[in-house]
Amino acid sequence: MPPSSRAAVGATQLDRALGDWQRPGAGPAYRTLAGGLRTLVLDGRVPVETRLPAERELSAALGVSRTTVAAAYELLRTEGFLSSRRGAGSWTALPIGRAMPVAGISPHAAGSGDVIDLGIAAMAAPEPWLSRAMAAAVAELPAWTSTHGDFPAGLTVLRQAVADRYTARGLPTGPEQIMITTGASGAFSLLMRQVLNPAERAAVESPSFANALQALRYAGGRAVPVPLLDDGWDLEAWARTLRDAAPRLAYLIPDFHNPTGLLMSEDERRALVAAARSTGTLLVSDETTVDLCLDPELAARMPRPLAAFDHGGTVVTLGSAGKTFWGGLRIGWIRATPELIRRLAGDRASLDVSSPVVEQLAVRHLLAPDMLPEVLAHQRDRVRTQRDALVEAVQEFLPGWTFRIPQGGLSLWVRTAAGVSGSALATTAERHGVWVGSGPRFGVDGVLERFVRLPYALPPEVTREAVRRLAAAAASLTGAPPVPTPAPEVTLL
Amino acid sequence: MPPSSRAAVGATQLDRALGDWQRPGAGPAYRTLAGGLRTLVLDGRVPVETRLPAERELSAALGVSRTTVAAAYELLRTEGFLSSRRGAGSWTALPIGRAMPVAGISPHAAGSGDVIDLGIAAMAAPEPWLSRAMAAAVAELPAWTSTHGDFPAGLTVLRQAVADRYTARGLPTGPEQIMITTGASGAFSLLMRQVLNPAERAAVESPSFANALQALRYAGGRAVPVPLLDDGWDLEAWARTLRDAAPRLAYLIPDFHNPTGLLMSEDERRALVAAARSTGTLLVSDETTVDLCLDPELAARMPRPLAAFDHGGTVVTLGSAGKTFWGGLRIGWIRATPELIRRLAGDRASLDVSSPVVEQLAVRHLLAPDMLPEVLAHQRDRVRTQRDALVEAVQEFLPGWTFRIPQGGLSLWVRTAAGVSGSALATTAERHGVWVGSGPRFGVDGVLERFVRLPYALPPEVTREAVRRLAAAAASLTGAPPVPTPAPEVTLL
Repeated sequence: MPPSSRAAVGATQLDRALGDWQRPGAGPAYRTLAGGLRTLVLDGRVPVETRLPAERELSAALGVSRTTVAAAYELLRTEGFLSSRRGAGSWTALPIGRAMPVAGISPHAAGSGDVIDLGIAAMAAPEPWLSRAMAAAVAELPAWTSTHGDFPAGLTVLRQAVADRYTARGLPTGPEQIMITTGASGAFSLLMRQVLNPAERAAVESPSFANALQALRYAGGRAVPVPLLDDGWDLEAWARTLRDAAPRLAYLIPDFHNPTGLLMSEDERRALVAAARSTGTLLVSDETTVDLCLDPELAARMPRPLAAFDHGGTVVTLGSAGKTFWGGLRIGWIRATPELIRRLAGDRASLDVSSPVVEQLAVRHLLAPDMLPEVLAHQRDRVRTQRDALVEAVQEFLPGWTFRIPQGGLSLWVRTAAGVSGSALATTAERHGVWVGSGPRFGVDGVLERFVRLPYALPPEVTREAVRRLAAAAASLTGAPPVPTPAPEVTLL
Repeated sequence: MPPSSRAAVGATQLDRALGDWQRPGAGPAYRTLAGGLRTLVLDGRVPVETRLPAERELSAALGVSRTTVAAAYELLRTEGFLSSRRGAGSWTALPIGRAMPVAGISPHAAGSGDVIDLGIAAMAAPEPWLSRAMAAAVAELPAWTSTHGDFPAGLTVLRQAVADRYTARGLPTGPEQIMITTGASGAFSLLMRQVLNPAERAAVESPSFANALQALRYAGGRAVPVPLLDDGWDLEAWARTLRDAAPRLAYLIPDFHNPTGLLMSEDERRALVAAARSTGTLLVSDETTVDLCLDPELAARMPRPLAAFDHGGTVVTLGSAGKTFWGGLRIGWIRATPELIRRLAGDRASLDVSSPVVEQLAVRHLLAPDMLPEVLAHQRDRVRTQRDALVEAVQEFLPGWTFRIPQGGLSLWVRTAAGVSGSALATTAERHGVWVGSGPRFGVDGVLERFVRLPYALPPEVTREAVRRLAAAAASLTGAPPVPTPAPEVTLL
């Protein structure tokens, strides 16, 4: 039977994703091309069981001979990265025993326990608060077990608690403006079904959150990237894009942007909302990491939410308990007009129906005034220590790599030293015992090849060891010796 | 700003959905047309903020004058069911204060507490088992809080427990064949992204589960209905459809089919899998209600799962804790080949990331041999009592309505008496204090207008009162007096 995957990749698309694979002195063209394709598969950017273009098409798109493409495909078949059937085409594959690459950013659970996962930005739970909140939730459960448990908009007690947090942040909000969702990702998927038609444009920051870009692709949307400046949002570029590309919506992460950590100022927020209102563009503001402010002074004077600058349904806000508290909870929310909330709740049954009752009750306890300040202080202290350890390790082991120290969020966005491609690094690093997200996952159409995202979600000693391994992987790519250091003993998660 | 909905309905589609609205003697055509459109909106079959066809197009499709359509639109505008803007078109709307209709089947949480919800087939939780399992899960939680909580394929302990259940049912299964999901609905959405291309065909039973049909629409699939016989699956029609329509996949509910309650025999299973294997069609078997077998003798000799007749990846199975235990859990699973499981897990980050840890631990306890038999016995006894109460009430209050008593599942599929349209009944019933799912929600293209689905998920006395109200609603449609009875005092959920 042919593979059951729906995926196919076109020749032009593959040409863009391969980038400048034909470097002079890189050896025979067919081997370099095979290597480039192998990297795309291993890095998860071309999913397994994706149909590749016919040899003739790809040779035309790349400007190489058909023999080169045929030889590259043959090499990949020999290695187990390609399977073909006469008359039916060729599909990407994985050699037996290779861990499955992931689309988007996701933990590499299939791999060996010996490899450090620097791929995802998610932390251990804040204890004892999480267990305490869960115990309180279970104690309350009997009040809910006599219901069918199906509340598409969420439990009113939690909707109220989330609304109160917005009000406290300077954005008066009622529970009818809140819907509880399956994390911010479930919120995004649900929202896309309602507001984006296939083939419509969606403006995104470049870089942006890898999983949101992937969700946009599944929704059939066309991402229009607007590059971020080193220190913030390019408002002229945004105004131009909203006006000229007329995107249906724009997806933004104004509060400790993922992956760069940038924070949008109030002036920028005001200008962006005004621009979007004038073009009728819906702004989707992802606030997943807003609570992870690592500068105590800044925490006391945080900009108001993007939606605070909106007066007419221009801004929809996505939030989540996944970064503030724990990824093992899977509770998120949408803040929107009551009308849109009602529509989203009415449409939820065919996606994920409802959110689990116990988790909702637990998040309500975590958000309560007698628990939240303590939890936030604990989380911020911990993340700050982890960030500082990562910064120190990168400066020590990867001296040529550059980055900006973020004031919040969970990751460094790092420009690699010359000659180190993020995709090649990501695939090589696995052999050196570390997984890392390459830059192109956070971009549209294979750009950002010189970047990697390094989350600081792990304990300092694990982070340090991960960076040491990453440096060894980078050295193996450039031929330079890694900065020497003894390998410390660590206990991995 | 124009509405942000992506929805539009074509003139031909609307013609089909309206059915035979032009009955002789029904009054002025424009009023009857407006009434038909109003019913479609109130019944949730044309969502709010859906763009309607231009008057000229609709008049051509319906074979009526443009004046008739214009007058119908004008009446709907006056009533608040339509909003128009010159040059931009007309969108469906709801008068202020009307509860939002739902797409698919979902609880009417927005409505008054005085209305009985016969829309959804979901029950109160089995106590004390649910609370006990949750408490045990929270006690185990500290072993997991040191992880990031993100396990795309699910916790291995639960994957193993689910696999063991399949093995016990005659289908040897390992944990690598199981992925834990956000209910069966989350499993279906995730699977559709991998295996169905937009515009590809998917064969479905007619009737089928309303929310799955809606999810298919969102996936861009084209549903090909295969009518069920009164007592089972029409294997000739299935073989013909698989051969002639060459659908990419078929979605089936062989174990107490929703909504009819039918159970597929082992012979039918064997034949269906063989037919699908020969045409290369993927069979998606939804087993959500398999545990709700209401006949103790049958429970001891249940047919083996559909996948037991498969030897090569033809069948993917969806399961859920939502009906067996409680809808407030939101835990489901997929059983498939290890390769497909790895691909689905690798692709999950952009949809719903992972499932909540505590819920997974609780479901593992509910599935454990020291708890499951007791819980199942309790659930089956309860559902049997509820079913018998519903059967009795329908026979008493709605004597002309016909149905087959199901051996399992959670609903009666009832053919209404002559002259009672399911859609009209659904909208009228709300005024009589009961919500009910009309037949066309369970069909493709507006068929099954003479049916309603009546779940037996509520306590007997509530069910009885709901049917009494339904009979009053039906009487108001036909003009016949309802079977007289005093209204009992009930405490609603």
